[in-house]
Amino acid sequence: MQILDVRLRATADRVNAALDALLPPAQGPEARLLDAMRYAALAGGKRLRPFLMIEAGRLFDADESALIRAAVAVECIHTYSLIHDDLPCMDDDDMRRGQPTVHRKYDEATAVLAGDALLTFAFEVLADPSAHPDPQMRCLLIAGLAKAAGAQGMVAGQMIDMAHGADAEDAAAVARMNRLKTGALISWSVEAGALIGCAREDARHALARYAQDLGVVFQMVDDLIDVSGDAGEAGKAVAKDAAAGKVNLVTLLGEDVARQRVRLLAAQAQKHLAIFGPRAKVLSEAVDFILERRY
Amino acid sequence: MQILDVRLRATADRVNAALDALLPPAQGPEARLLDAMRYAALAGGKRLRPFLMIEAGRLFDADESALIRAAVAVECIHTYSLIHDDLPCMDDDDMRRGQPTVHRKYDEATAVLAGDALLTFAFEVLADPSAHPDPQMRCLLIAGLAKAAGAQGMVAGQMIDMAHGADAEDAAAVARMNRLKTGALISWSVEAGALIGCAREDARHALARYAQDLGVVFQMVDDLIDVSGDAGEAGKAVAKDAAAGKVNLVTLLGEDVARQRVRLLAAQAQKHLAIFGPRAKVLSEAVDFILERRY
Repeated sequence: MQILDVRLRATADRVNAALDALLPPAQGPEARLLDAMRYAALAGGKRLRPFLMIEAGRLFDADESALIRAAVAVECIHTYSLIHDDLPCMDDDDMRRGQPTVHRKYDEATAVLAGDALLTFAFEVLADPSAHPDPQMRCLLIAGLAKAAGAQGMVAGQMIDMAHGADAEDAAAVARMNRLKTGALISWSVEAGALIGCAREDARHALARYAQDLGVVFQMVDDLIDVSGDAGEAGKAVAKDAAAGKVNLVTLLGEDVARQRVRLLAAQAQKHLAIFGPRAKVLSEAVDFILERRY
Repeated sequence: MQILDVRLRATADRVNAALDALLPPAQGPEARLLDAMRYAALAGGKRLRPFLMIEAGRLFDADESALIRAAVAVECIHTYSLIHDDLPCMDDDDMRRGQPTVHRKYDEATAVLAGDALLTFAFEVLADPSAHPDPQMRCLLIAGLAKAAGAQGMVAGQMIDMAHGADAEDAAAVARMNRLKTGALISWSVEAGALIGCAREDARHALARYAQDLGVVFQMVDDLIDVSGDAGEAGKAVAKDAAAGKVNLVTLLGEDVARQRVRLLAAQAQKHLAIFGPRAKVLSEAVDFILERRY
């Protein structure tokens, strides 16, 4: 795990530096907007999606600067989704990553706008020639990110969570919601790394299956933290689903069965990496990291 | 004006048909989201930005299907901005285009998500190969739209309006806010038409100047409607700026001076079209249309 910690931090540092360099400076009468964007985007966070993207790309010796740029884009999307999900009309959260959420630190209007601007900025970053010399590649990345993040991906998952979360008693429906809400963006991150690395189809398929299992593990661990975690350690409120009367895979299956299942899925995710041999060691350790995280 | 009416309606019909065909159908447990997107996007509206884009492109015999696709994208952005601007934490509007706003018809969470999804969808539409055969062109369109709509364009304008609208007593600052809030997207619409038509640089410059003046005319007429319009005719609440203690160019200059100035600007916009001769008749009439609109 120590190698993983070092690489996670190194990736986070590079992505943070790139975000800081690319985000517009907070100046002019609109400084409040740019300030809120920077506050949310540079507030820390594990940078897990960038990490998965960059490590997937490294399997194929993908260009590092292209990986970093795509990683910035996915982190902008992830950050916007957190800002909007935290809004009073959504999950109504006051804390995120141990700090006040954007609407608590600024106000609701600023939070909506900062989210909108970060979402838009992700595509500006990917469309720029410095993202990748081949415009065809840039278009593929933009199309993939838009699909993963949009009305048939992440936003659809959040809508189901908002509208039907409390009614769902069907494990398959909950699994689909998770696949949309968190799985789609995690999957895209891994796929984008392979795409930038011009990976062969069998390698891309193996990584896609890895990412799909990893996404489920990620969400189930999130639900386990919500059920049994500590708010101080998590840096955000816990036991929210139970308080909201919402079901998730942990409340549906019971904590013990959920813990068993998440371990099986983690092992399955790691098996998909077999075709890459020892090169995929970091991606394999990332599964253990996600499995054991407490926040 | 009669030719213009016919062409405006014809463009609106084509853009509406394309929007209807491209937007995902409202099905599955996320149907509420897709329904809200369709409700907002297909609620009518003049489709002015698509019209300007398509007519600008026609000056250069641009490919019509590429123009329609880009027009769908800009209308998705415009629609998302209306949904979010209408939210209780922003302008808190109940009516839009003569119908309940999205958060009144559905709820706030759905309105935030429908806006997010439409914003994302605009880029999905432009990144798809059917938008234009040349990926370089698709990237240019995406980059231009993201810049016009984002943290250094439309969203910045809305932020200034929210945060400082009431304090601004400086006509230059108000003009800059308008340029960002409404001008940037109108300008991009005209520029995108020229871009798709592979217009020469002098033609593009003339159209950019036309679009800039037209954007100011558009916003000033909006402010004049707010000052002296009728809510029933406008399809939305009026006298909002005065009620909110906000200044705009009309309250700053006075109604008479504002009316004079808007006529001068309209004439100036039309002069920029001189190099195109009679081919630009429709774009010229569009200025009169905007000048005389009541809603």
